[in-house]
Amino acid sequence: MMTDAAVEFSDFRVAALAGGVGGAKLVRGLDSVLQPGKLTVIVNTGDDFVHFGLQICPDLDTVCYALAGLADPMKGWGRADETWQVFTSLAELDAPTWFQLGDKDLALHLERTRLLQSGWSLSALTRGFCDRWNIRSRVLPMCDEPFRTRVRTAEGKLLDFQEYFVRERCEPKVQEFVFAHAENIQAAPEVLPALLEADLVVLCPSNPWVSIDPILHLPGIREILQEKVVVAVSPIIQGKTIKGPAAKMFAELGIPPSSLSVLDHYADFLDGFVYDALDREVFQNYDAERIILYGTDTLMKTDEDKTRLAAEVLRFGQNLISRKAP
Amino acid sequence: MMTDAAVEFSDFRVAALAGGVGGAKLVRGLDSVLQPGKLTVIVNTGDDFVHFGLQICPDLDTVCYALAGLADPMKGWGRADETWQVFTSLAELDAPTWFQLGDKDLALHLERTRLLQSGWSLSALTRGFCDRWNIRSRVLPMCDEPFRTRVRTAEGKLLDFQEYFVRERCEPKVQEFVFAHAENIQAAPEVLPALLEADLVVLCPSNPWVSIDPILHLPGIREILQEKVVVAVSPIIQGKTIKGPAAKMFAELGIPPSSLSVLDHYADFLDGFVYDALDREVFQNYDAERIILYGTDTLMKTDEDKTRLAAEVLRFGQNLISRKAP
Repeated sequence: MMTDAAVEFSDFRVAALAGGVGGAKLVRGLDSVLQPGKLTVIVNTGDDFVHFGLQICPDLDTVCYALAGLADPMKGWGRADETWQVFTSLAELDAPTWFQLGDKDLALHLERTRLLQSGWSLSALTRGFCDRWNIRSRVLPMCDEPFRTRVRTAEGKLLDFQEYFVRERCEPKVQEFVFAHAENIQAAPEVLPALLEADLVVLCPSNPWVSIDPILHLPGIREILQEKVVVAVSPIIQGKTIKGPAAKMFAELGIPPSSLSVLDHYADFLDGFVYDALDREVFQNYDAERIILYGTDTLMKTDEDKTRLAAEVLRFGQNLISRKAP
Repeated sequence: MMTDAAVEFSDFRVAALAGGVGGAKLVRGLDSVLQPGKLTVIVNTGDDFVHFGLQICPDLDTVCYALAGLADPMKGWGRADETWQVFTSLAELDAPTWFQLGDKDLALHLERTRLLQSGWSLSALTRGFCDRWNIRSRVLPMCDEPFRTRVRTAEGKLLDFQEYFVRERCEPKVQEFVFAHAENIQAAPEVLPALLEADLVVLCPSNPWVSIDPILHLPGIREILQEKVVVAVSPIIQGKTIKGPAAKMFAELGIPPSSLSVLDHYADFLDGFVYDALDREVFQNYDAERIILYGTDTLMKTDEDKTRLAAEVLRFGQNLISRKAP
């Protein structure tokens, strides 16, 4: 129950690392059980890109639309009750249509581009949109500077992320992910302080390779996570992803696509790992010494699912904190 | 009659200088009476601007929409059957709404911006759009480089043209028009050749100050016009403009807003001047030595009006050419 949860987690401060669709679902749950202002979401911007001259931030928008209650409930991205007049007209001009642009969504890309070109930072203008939408939590892009995730394919091509992800529909086989110059890109000003202040850090069930890893590549993040109580929620259930190419990426990189592989991916700083109860046998022989496991139903179909899972993750986190306490 | 006119003007090559709404009307008439490919329209780009990161070319679009049969017949600019979803959504974000952006119109701005950023010239991409729309005539932006018409107000402010024209609704009193660095901006590659090849040059009933003057400021244009047979059509009838601020500009610059002032404005290269028959008394005592006058109904409400006026202007031009011939 929402009221009980809000009392339960009063003053509990959480920083969540998130990508797009899966991340946005848990973030919506966390937002509903935590007190206003106690949740900070640090969002991947590695798949941001410029299209038709506009700055497009797919993960940031998915998270914001979810928190604002504007998201399309079926697709998981974009806006509810969207219209497509501009997109239809682009097609009539033989313009590229591999990236779908809804009319309402376009307004956000236009205004963001205008504000960026007027000298606003991505952090500041995102705060403005969140205020406009009465979002209770704080949403931070992981960095204000451009960060470009690219995909090196088995054929040796280097693709921009959206070219790989949307235009090529994740079909090329992945050899590696390239985060060029990531070591020189500073996290956005509020990101490291938000992590330092947090009682608990949650890694949302987002793609480890292209949603969470870009955030982890920014200078200072891993060092803080090693000092913090960190819980990750597996985006993989029974070797598959609910949405997106994470399982395919694991396989192409020669790693078994399982929730255990996700745990291993974060092992150096993780304190707790939430996996789906269907994966119980995956962890049957897992020797949980440092990393504590928690199995539950992680599939989030409804808002109730999101709230229930968020509350479970937070309670699990609080347990880990009390274990760690001297 | 269209067929007769097409025969009448077979092989007759015309270059028309045009701005937005008024220019587009005569251009549509000229396009319908001339043979395909025989009309070249050289369009003002001095009021182009960047808005929300998009390159917007108001006059070029008005001319192209008119020739493509896509124009809004009531407003004279923008597209027929337009929708406004993006614009409504921009307003919901508290974004600037002083410049109206229709959904269909936006698609053109998006694709133009994409092509420019991919290295296309404005001339080349405009040709692409015209081909897509099956436009029979050739439409050229006056230049491919940015040309920024600005307005110095009586209060000493220097406004970008669209700020003055749309945002401030032409309310500030004009002191002068500023075409910074115009002497260094080359006409688009096909512009001077089109003028040299033309049998007749027509100055459309566009604003002399902000639609035609920017074109005349480009290096080489005036020199060619002095050698050519040039006919101008007055945008002023009985001291008023059908649309737009030309009459107000004349008055603020201390010049009587009359069709005679328009003639004087172009006097150094003009051969013929078409004025509205309602202005007969304005020219009662005019000593027509070098510049020949032609009075007719210049108001263009219907496509028939446009075709009729265009044919009259062309016949008048042919007369001037035969007079000039040795």
